[in-house]
Amino acid sequence: MHILYHQPISPFSRKIRVILAEKKLEAEFVVEPVWQRRQSFLALNPAGQVPVLVDVKSRVIADSNAIAEYLEEIQANPNLLPFDAIGRAETRRLMAWFDDKFNAEVTVPQVGEKLYKRLSGGGPPDSAVVRAGTQNIFTHLDYIGHLAERRNWLAGDDFSFADITAAAHLSAVDYVGGVPWDHNGEARTWYARVKSRPSFRSVLSDHIPGLQPPAHYADLDF
Amino acid sequence: MHILYHQPISPFSRKIRVILAEKKLEAEFVVEPVWQRRQSFLALNPAGQVPVLVDVKSRVIADSNAIAEYLEEIQANPNLLPFDAIGRAETRRLMAWFDDKFNAEVTVPQVGEKLYKRLSGGGPPDSAVVRAGTQNIFTHLDYIGHLAERRNWLAGDDFSFADITAAAHLSAVDYVGGVPWDHNGEARTWYARVKSRPSFRSVLSDHIPGLQPPAHYADLDF
Repeated sequence: MHILYHQPISPFSRKIRVILAEKKLEAEFVVEPVWQRRQSFLALNPAGQVPVLVDVKSRVIADSNAIAEYLEEIQANPNLLPFDAIGRAETRRLMAWFDDKFNAEVTVPQVGEKLYKRLSGGGPPDSAVVRAGTQNIFTHLDYIGHLAERRNWLAGDDFSFADITAAAHLSAVDYVGGVPWDHNGEARTWYARVKSRPSFRSVLSDHIPGLQPPAHYADLDF
Repeated sequence: MHILYHQPISPFSRKIRVILAEKKLEAEFVVEPVWQRRQSFLALNPAGQVPVLVDVKSRVIADSNAIAEYLEEIQANPNLLPFDAIGRAETRRLMAWFDDKFNAEVTVPQVGEKLYKRLSGGGPPDSAVVRAGTQNIFTHLDYIGHLAERRNWLAGDDFSFADITAAAHLSAVDYVGGVPWDHNGEARTWYARVKSRPSFRSVLSDHIPGLQPPAHYADLDF
């Protein structure tokens, strides 16, 4: 069985949990308190970040995109990258959009301040930073809506890594109550479709002690 | 012919220039002043970043890793990712190491402050930020040395995207005089081998008006 070192609300970890579930790959999930910088964990990944996958042959794979591509290569069914090179490029562009841009502009200001700062003993959230994250999400919701209006899924005809990456970030921000879903109906409808997939169930059932998600968080008909 | 929108000292752009040269793919190079946020460029890449590739059929590909993977898929000779899934994962892990971690800890503090801030009219460098980047590079040089001591190239037996990504960042920092090469002999020897490849020539001949690189920058026997 695979082992995944992860953090429940980390969007990079959630991406891999959803991919494992889509591909029906069984895994043991180990919650890693990354802020403790445990020596045995740093030996697995010197970058000190989750997710880290230890595969069935005990080989270590770090970095969420390296893991995603690896899982696509060893388990093609279902494919989560398109077959054509241009479609694959568009999917990877959108993965980078959410993992780099959305992450820096929305996830880190919101989830970092409201959740990880507390978990790691970093003190109360900086309200100016949270406010910036709150403002930045509007253009991202509009971009998702723009794509969802023109395509069946974000990167094209099929459900892909792009949808999983976007939904992983949005779900983390949604957990801390940071997504104004009323802002864009197309984005909301797209997210409802992702939420209803069985692969998303475990993400929707996460609970961090002392920080309840909003009532709509796990509601498929929100 | 391909068209590459780039910035000469951008490590993300340099990565793609070297890959194009390794694969002997001809391209027209267009320098894009990203800080001007030109509407016609934002139409190509809403993220507003270089590099952007327009392929031979006028299809647009943005994000340096999406471009790298695309070029690997359309032109396998020479392969710059290993054939086995674990080797590919290790290569991609190291690409992320340099594009995320090295970039944030070294490239942005050094190249961002000394070069891009000036090019974009952002004022003089913040010496405290530059100093942090100067300190952070030591552990990265040691990590490169550690890998180069144990492997033929950074990710394994063969020259790969990992070497290109690492060298793209180091070369950008080297341009602004920020690499203490005496610190780690193994890292220096590895970089000398990368530098001597014909694919690296164009990077070594870059010159930004008003900012000369140090004398050793283009020297193969530095």
